[in-house]
Amino acid sequence: MITVGIVGGSGYGAVELIRLLQHHPNVVIKYVFSHSKIDEPISKTFPHLNHIALNYTELNEQATSCDVIFFATPSNVSKHLAPNLINKGVKVIDLSGDFRLTDRNLYQTFYGEPAAEQALLDKALYSIAEWSEIDSQRTKLIANPGCFPTSILLALHPLIAQNVIDIQSIIIDSKTGVSGAGRSLAQHVHYAEMNENFSAYAIGNHKHKPEIEQYISKIAGTKCNVMFTPHIVPMTRGILSTIYVKLNEYTTAEHLHAIYKNNYEQKPFIRIRDLGEYPKTKEVYGSNFCDIGLYVDEKNQRAVIVSVIDNLVKGASGQAIQNLNLLYGLDEATGLNQLPIYP
Amino acid sequence: MITVGIVGGSGYGAVELIRLLQHHPNVVIKYVFSHSKIDEPISKTFPHLNHIALNYTELNEQATSCDVIFFATPSNVSKHLAPNLINKGVKVIDLSGDFRLTDRNLYQTFYGEPAAEQALLDKALYSIAEWSEIDSQRTKLIANPGCFPTSILLALHPLIAQNVIDIQSIIIDSKTGVSGAGRSLAQHVHYAEMNENFSAYAIGNHKHKPEIEQYISKIAGTKCNVMFTPHIVPMTRGILSTIYVKLNEYTTAEHLHAIYKNNYEQKPFIRIRDLGEYPKTKEVYGSNFCDIGLYVDEKNQRAVIVSVIDNLVKGASGQAIQNLNLLYGLDEATGLNQLPIYP
Amino acid sequence: MITVGIVGGSGYGAVELIRLLQHHPNVVIKYVFSHSKIDEPISKTFPHLNHIALNYTELNEQATSCDVIFFATPSNVSKHLAPNLINKGVKVIDLSGDFRLTDRNLYQTFYGEPAAEQALLDKALYSIAEWSEIDSQRTKLIANPGCFPTSILLALHPLIAQNVIDIQSIIIDSKTGVSGAGRSLAQHVHYAEMNENFSAYAIGNHKHKPEIEQYISKIAGTKCNVMFTPHIVPMTRGILSTIYVKLNEYTTAEHLHAIYKNNYEQKPFIRIRDLGEYPKTKEVYGSNFCDIGLYVDEKNQRAVIVSVIDNLVKGASGQAIQNLNLLYGLDEATGLNQLPIYP
Amino acid sequence: MITVGIVGGSGYGAVELIRLLQHHPNVVIKYVFSHSKIDEPISKTFPHLNHIALNYTELNEQATSCDVIFFATPSNVSKHLAPNLINKGVKVIDLSGDFRLTDRNLYQTFYGEPAAEQALLDKALYSIAEWSEIDSQRTKLIANPGCFPTSILLALHPLIAQNVIDIQSIIIDSKTGVSGAGRSLAQHVHYAEMNENFSAYAIGNHKHKPEIEQYISKIAGTKCNVMFTPHIVPMTRGILSTIYVKLNEYTTAEHLHAIYKNNYEQKPFIRIRDLGEYPKTKEVYGSNFCDIGLYVDEKNQRAVIVSVIDNLVKGASGQAIQNLNLLYGLDEATGLNQLPIYP
Repeated sequence: MITVGIVGGSGYGAVELIRLLQHHPNVVIKYVFSHSKIDEPISKTFPHLNHIALNYTELNEQATSCDVIFFATPSNVSKHLAPNLINKGVKVIDLSGDFRLTDRNLYQTFYGEPAAEQALLDKALYSIAEWSEIDSQRTKLIANPGCFPTSILLALHPLIAQNVIDIQSIIIDSKTGVSGAGRSLAQHVHYAEMNENFSAYAIGNHKHKPEIEQYISKIAGTKCNVMFTPHIVPMTRGILSTIYVKLNEYTTAEHLHAIYKNNYEQKPFIRIRDLGEYPKTKEVYGSNFCDIGLYVDEKNQRAVIVSVIDNLVKGASGQAIQNLNLLYGLDEATGLNQLPIYP
Repeated sequence: MITVGIVGGSGYGAVELIRLLQHHPNVVIKYVFSHSKIDEPISKTFPHLNHIALNYTELNEQATSCDVIFFATPSNVSKHLAPNLINKGVKVIDLSGDFRLTDRNLYQTFYGEPAAEQALLDKALYSIAEWSEIDSQRTKLIANPGCFPTSILLALHPLIAQNVIDIQSIIIDSKTGVSGAGRSLAQHVHYAEMNENFSAYAIGNHKHKPEIEQYISKIAGTKCNVMFTPHIVPMTRGILSTIYVKLNEYTTAEHLHAIYKNNYEQKPFIRIRDLGEYPKTKEVYGSNFCDIGLYVDEKNQRAVIVSVIDNLVKGASGQAIQNLNLLYGLDEATGLNQLPIYP
Repeated sequence: MITVGIVGGSGYGAVELIRLLQHHPNVVIKYVFSHSKIDEPISKTFPHLNHIALNYTELNEQATSCDVIFFATPSNVSKHLAPNLINKGVKVIDLSGDFRLTDRNLYQTFYGEPAAEQALLDKALYSIAEWSEIDSQRTKLIANPGCFPTSILLALHPLIAQNVIDIQSIIIDSKTGVSGAGRSLAQHVHYAEMNENFSAYAIGNHKHKPEIEQYISKIAGTKCNVMFTPHIVPMTRGILSTIYVKLNEYTTAEHLHAIYKNNYEQKPFIRIRDLGEYPKTKEVYGSNFCDIGLYVDEKNQRAVIVSVIDNLVKGASGQAIQNLNLLYGLDEATGLNQLPIYP
Repeated sequence: MITVGIVGGSGYGAVELIRLLQHHPNVVIKYVFSHSKIDEPISKTFPHLNHIALNYTELNEQATSCDVIFFATPSNVSKHLAPNLINKGVKVIDLSGDFRLTDRNLYQTFYGEPAAEQALLDKALYSIAEWSEIDSQRTKLIANPGCFPTSILLALHPLIAQNVIDIQSIIIDSKTGVSGAGRSLAQHVHYAEMNENFSAYAIGNHKHKPEIEQYISKIAGTKCNVMFTPHIVPMTRGILSTIYVKLNEYTTAEHLHAIYKNNYEQKPFIRIRDLGEYPKTKEVYGSNFCDIGLYVDEKNQRAVIVSVIDNLVKGASGQAIQNLNLLYGLDEATGLNQLPIYP
């Protein structure tokens, strides 16, 4: 059995890892760490886990007895704690933003604190699971992608790799459920203010913008600049990204659709919808699926791609487990076969 | 014009007073006070008031130039600030719990702090507007009822006054929208935790329990003890109270219904529904109405009364304005004729 | 493997059976029947099942090749179709109301149609899974309890069996999410009218009232009449029942709490909360748990019991699978170990 | 007093007209017409109007005794009924799409039925109230704009009129609350399926696309083709449109902002937000405001405009009343001064 520890145990990422990992036949949770709740039962913070006798523990050298440590922490935590673990031979899967950006200046700009050491960043592998370059032998530190970037890059990768779109034309209009903001308190996530409310935020300066651009630029082999507008939807879970692109040349809807079908036919979690059908967030609720729909304006050589994920599963903990599966040479779907909850 | 000031300007009670009072032909808002936001424009806290040029001010002696001061504050505030105002001839309408309980020990028990001075409590008039004993000459301090009690006492008053129910049998199951918890941050009002969630709380020890019992006991002329269970509903506004009573003797549904119709036929804000029809919270949304429906189990001599209000209007700011109208001898509906927003 | 067929394939009960049964190691779904959608792929009706290649089929003699048929149909369907299946040796688990009431007159009154034949009713076993009398050899037809009754009877059974409450005093105030109304269209379940809306309905004449009374009367050995008020909450899933009872004699909170702990300590899906803690619907979301909290007013010899379930799982499909497990002598929790989804 | 009649009395447009017109000092509602509910009290359909004694009536020649008839009907109704009214000297304000498109072929394509007669279309004036060309003497038929177009065209008009953007670059990503779909029943507006769900629909073929293009083309003096993607948000009211444009030349954020401020400073319902601040739908809930925020990517010469309205007020009934005010030479804000409901 692969033994794992989870840092950031009072957050939504951790509690989703606990939910999903109970179905994983090869993994056992050894520790759930929480700085502020040491020795408290998890069920005090999360009464839905009332029947589980498990206490939070302090993150100390015991952690090095695990095979894998997940960081489900805010940014600026894992970069301080990961080095010791990696040095002791523990593999780290980081759900925060600390190891996603290779450009340390960009990190400083968008996260407002100094980046991790370059040597550490060099060890990190940014891993969109369906396009991962994980090497079971050599990979020691995985930067699990952000929720928005996951929904966006799964939708864009095939088109960029096939060179069918103008990457300077990309406009991304994303919408997320409220759990994407985490469990911390803030006025705008107060129920009475968020309910019946829809809004845009952080236009032009969201942390996920450089992450998206870095990935696109790498595949395309040229720098790109995207327009990215996140919005917040009065619902708990789900991301829908609407992506607008220009096609390099006249392309039929069927051809573009075939590119998606071909790229993802072997991928258990990517479901390409028929032309004319667009996925809804509830259709992936609680599951690791990413569903993609497509509209092509053939005459004007433009396309709209709509992709949906559950931000806490495919956009965080589910993909982290999928990456763990890849890291250990398991079937990538191991433990992740839950159907969406509907309705 | 009646000049008013509002204390507690960054809360929901205040912002609802502002919304409603703009339609009041006899009232002008002179000050909105906020301790923590002095000199800030109101629109910084409440962008929906973006077009209104009004700044928060500090509560000081200027307040005494107003005719009326509304306290839309948490408990334990008005009892300290009201005396000076009253002494200077300002009338006070208090939306908090500070002056509702005549028994100082009960206040101490349920609010966890010492009660207001007895002399001050003696001046206070608890005023369910439809049954109010306001005296335009003598009343100087109005204790505006709590939101739950308003929905409950309007439903119970006729039956108690007519002596048709056993007041020892009263069981009240109330449900409130989230705005009833105020604007302060807390984990349980985080959108992601409140959405798709329904729960009971404070069974047996809610602050509104002694307030309900005090009123019933007063009308009935005998002490009573109610069972009161509040619940919180994933919606912003609205209270529905389901009240279970035993009838003293065999009573037809029609007879009980007639009692309600007779008691409230002159009251513009009380709408008695036809037998077999129960009101829904959305049917009073944003308005000062209290709608009441009735079920009678004739065989077993039991009845169920269902009443709904908008907790921020009839349950707080709307009733406060209605009380102000009574205080100034105006038509009680002045400024309060908004229809419910539907859907 | 146990082969099963599901009748009523376009409803929520069926789709929840499909979700849950995929995790069941001993069951395979052979057919999903739908009268109106014969030969259509399930994913056309339920795009969240997009990756599953399964078509609706017509209910005909093929059904008799299954070991078990689940009816997830409205009332007045299974009573016509079950007899032939049972005669052919197929076991039937009925999620509708057709076989719940032993009194045929009551069925006629509350369901508005003639009841099933008496001979058939005599074969039916009403099975609250935790208190089930299923006999693997003899039971051929299981009446799966209604959603409200499940939440209520699990909460009341221990107190009635121990004879600590006055069964004539029972008042039940239940609240359900909207999925309890099924997938059919109606004005009151239109999103714009249900959202931000809370209401009571069917007071005194809900179909589940005689079902509750029948069960209580059977355990208590005497006829009882409950007051039952259902409400509908603007949320998709979840039932919370608040139950008011009189205690036969002075009883401490600890004693009553111990009765629950003792009765349910061997039951994997019943979680008794600590005194002073009340369960919330979201804490069982998507799971087969029933959580129960307790308030005791010792002085007045009254108690309030709060119980929550997911209406589509423990209140329908989950309990149906639990009953199937009992029917086949499997561990009752087989395939039902999903944790609640939170948040 | 201006006497008005409302056709389509059982829909959301009508009920919102009733709510708003009660505050209008110059208007009295004479008839509310409903084909399917003749002689029924309005409160039977809309219990929130319980205290209003008003019955639906049949639309017949009595209608010609009104000064103005509002059509709050689906498409394909008013084009048949308006001619007779206009001929009899009644002014018509149509909230449906029947008179919005000047190109009859486009109407046929997008609405799936033959367009109104050309002679009738020639009489119709499409009136975005802030930019209206209403002539009190001559205008007899007003085509009230669609909800999406209102939110979009108010945001785009100043930039197009000032010729600062490339009108071929316009990409519009709009999001609407569920009431935009009307009161009719459909599976996707069932609460259980819409709640916690976000989706795109009708990409490339929404009825409002040609309406948007027609208006832009007219102001710009050249044909344009927009990319328009509508989405549906799990909330009752509100539209937010996120609009992406290319700037014709280097333009500072301050300059673009000044264009908005200058264009709208005299307009009581348009509130331009400070740079860096984006409006939320709840901030206009229940009111006739349109709030606009702005982001400028100076380096890449692109801008994002965010605009919000209440789809039933500014997007329908509120704007219709504003148009009536203009038609009668009244202050355009008459009867429309309600503050947004918050929270």
